[in-house]
Amino acid sequence: MAKSISSCLLLPPCSSSTPTLKHTYLHCQNSKPSRRPTLSPGPRTRTRICIVRATLAIEKETPENERPETFLRSGDDPHSSVAASTTSVRARFERMIREAQDVVCAAVEAEDGAGKFTEDVWSRDGGGGGISRVLQDGEVWEKAGVNVSVVYGVMPPEAYRAAKGGDSSQNPGSVPFFAAGISSVLHPKNPFAPTLHFNYRYFETDTIKDSPGAPRQWWFGGGTDLTPAYIFEEDMKHFHQIQKQTCDKFDPRFYPRFKKWCDDYFFIKHRGERRGLGGIFFDDLNDYDQEMLLSFATECSKSVVPAYIPIISRRKETPFTDQHKAWQQLRRGRYVEFNLVYDRGTTFGIKTGGRIESILVSLPLTARWEYGHEPEEGSEEWKLLDACINPREWI
Amino acid sequence: MAKSISSCLLLPPCSSSTPTLKHTYLHCQNSKPSRRPTLSPGPRTRTRICIVRATLAIEKETPENERPETFLRSGDDPHSSVAASTTSVRARFERMIREAQDVVCAAVEAEDGAGKFTEDVWSRDGGGGGISRVLQDGEVWEKAGVNVSVVYGVMPPEAYRAAKGGDSSQNPGSVPFFAAGISSVLHPKNPFAPTLHFNYRYFETDTIKDSPGAPRQWWFGGGTDLTPAYIFEEDMKHFHQIQKQTCDKFDPRFYPRFKKWCDDYFFIKHRGERRGLGGIFFDDLNDYDQEMLLSFATECSKSVVPAYIPIISRRKETPFTDQHKAWQQLRRGRYVEFNLVYDRGTTFGIKTGGRIESILVSLPLTARWEYGHEPEEGSEEWKLLDACINPREWI
Repeated sequence: MAKSISSCLLLPPCSSSTPTLKHTYLHCQNSKPSRRPTLSPGPRTRTRICIVRATLAIEKETPENERPETFLRSGDDPHSSVAASTTSVRARFERMIREAQDVVCAAVEAEDGAGKFTEDVWSRDGGGGGISRVLQDGEVWEKAGVNVSVVYGVMPPEAYRAAKGGDSSQNPGSVPFFAAGISSVLHPKNPFAPTLHFNYRYFETDTIKDSPGAPRQWWFGGGTDLTPAYIFEEDMKHFHQIQKQTCDKFDPRFYPRFKKWCDDYFFIKHRGERRGLGGIFFDDLNDYDQEMLLSFATECSKSVVPAYIPIISRRKETPFTDQHKAWQQLRRGRYVEFNLVYDRGTTFGIKTGGRIESILVSLPLTARWEYGHEPEEGSEEWKLLDACINPREWI
Repeated sequence: MAKSISSCLLLPPCSSSTPTLKHTYLHCQNSKPSRRPTLSPGPRTRTRICIVRATLAIEKETPENERPETFLRSGDDPHSSVAASTTSVRARFERMIREAQDVVCAAVEAEDGAGKFTEDVWSRDGGGGGISRVLQDGEVWEKAGVNVSVVYGVMPPEAYRAAKGGDSSQNPGSVPFFAAGISSVLHPKNPFAPTLHFNYRYFETDTIKDSPGAPRQWWFGGGTDLTPAYIFEEDMKHFHQIQKQTCDKFDPRFYPRFKKWCDDYFFIKHRGERRGLGGIFFDDLNDYDQEMLLSFATECSKSVVPAYIPIISRRKETPFTDQHKAWQQLRRGRYVEFNLVYDRGTTFGIKTGGRIESILVSLPLTARWEYGHEPEEGSEEWKLLDACINPREWI
């Protein structure tokens, strides 16, 4: 697991947007000026903020009134013709994730019946940008975020280490990169309706300044995984079956490999348990044909709606008690622990000074921590926990 | 800020207590056998757990029926007489924190009027142990934890780096150590009643194997800080005044220095704001007389009740709305972010495989995250946020 770039790189403009609003406020329908208190000019606080900014290697964002046709830089590849640049992997990947965002948001709104996504669009002077869509307090979902973003940046060594994992003693220096991705977490209200996370991303390093002849690196990452508070065998079979079908179109070894990778990745080490009941996950994937992997990521994104929405249809109106809700809230607490402590995307996004509201939209609306909580042996809650500790084969 | 050992080192036996229960279960009133699902013998999961355990340099804990008189090893210092060993800084610090635990718990129970602390006691074969006391769902507090612990351990390099902060490229190898401390977080229910955190700790490195003549290192750390969701000037003045009075007994430079240190330490970098409204904090303190610092830590611990309980008395029955509660919950979310992402005690405890329920008892019972929440300018919520962004002088 080397050279990964993770989910939140895919949605991180920086957090303080007030200064950049000056050009766009009068025309801006989707953005509003921040009412957040601003820093007083005290030298101590200012110094602190500079420390944060010092790790930021991504240009500041500007809120936009309309979605641009593309977030790619014009003439992105100086060695390619215009025609080639619209058929590049970068360009096709961006089109794919933006279509996927539209499809998933439409399906979620249709299933919710009441909630609507609000949208924030931003760009950056140096190229890149993103679209965050969030549905809060709907009929079915309490918080649903679906974000796409395109990032041109220079990775500082510490962010590179956080993104790539592994040996922290290795110091590669600064690395210019391009990344694009879609990232989504959907938290329903009903404790019998599972949370879904999916994220697909494409990453390229640019030509390195001191060695212009060095080959560019590229890789794909992503996955789709389900986090229920209660197990319904038919839901788990359905969800994993769709993942397997998608994988099998490309390589019969994909599903077992990526299913195991998912179980291994979403592991809350300090609890000895997984965040949820898995799905598929892969990272740093470049040891297959690039076109094949682009198709694979596309198919995976297309499988999100058929894998997830039928489960929500079945569970969204199931009657529940306060006890069911409290258990869901405890599992949401575990979700928070994983995301803040282990998730490479979140830790990378935080370290690079990403747009924090987009990064942390993955956190649930509410969560709960009880001291020493242990479900009664053999109970439905115990069975869920058992499956988080001992991953199962669902199909 | 070097060589710190942080709060959670002070309460971390390891998490899976089931195997050690065999000797004590029949006699044990305070502990019960875990009903948590156990690991299946699948090789994959077992391997994972071994990875976690590999970073654990602290002996496994055994639940105890009764509180021992001391958690220190007998003959802790082979060069001292028995008389000297009971008057050592280690021994006096342990007595101090155990008295402080009794005093704080009694005051909290008296003020709560209904809730009672439950207690878990543990020891370790190699020496050391601890007492966790937790009051959950009382009349006034929703979650209150007061823990003491004594740890003999060998710090693996990665834990040493997490504890000490700073340059991560430095590799000191394994370091044997002794640590003792008290750590507490008290989360009230009423949104006008503030959360309190305090923690006082003493740390010594043992003689290093390969250089027996090398001098031992020691240092003190700790602090007391307040996290309200709403500002009451009189509460803030009272709280900081008591901190200043305590500091001034020792050195007039202490309060300004440790007040600033507190503002700097409890900083949520990715938000550009502090967790709360400060107090005092110090770490790695060894550039004063050792006896003086022992007295200082003792006085600080004694000041917790008079600094905090009068505030709770004033606020615990203030009427509030759902909006007040929701704002408190959002601030609790920030508390979770700080503790899981930045707090050296928590990250150190997690990395050393500490007893996770004791480490994470600091997390609130419930917390909340809303996308893009910004309080209305000039509102009471905005004023709190402003004070978290721009630290104030309260006295």
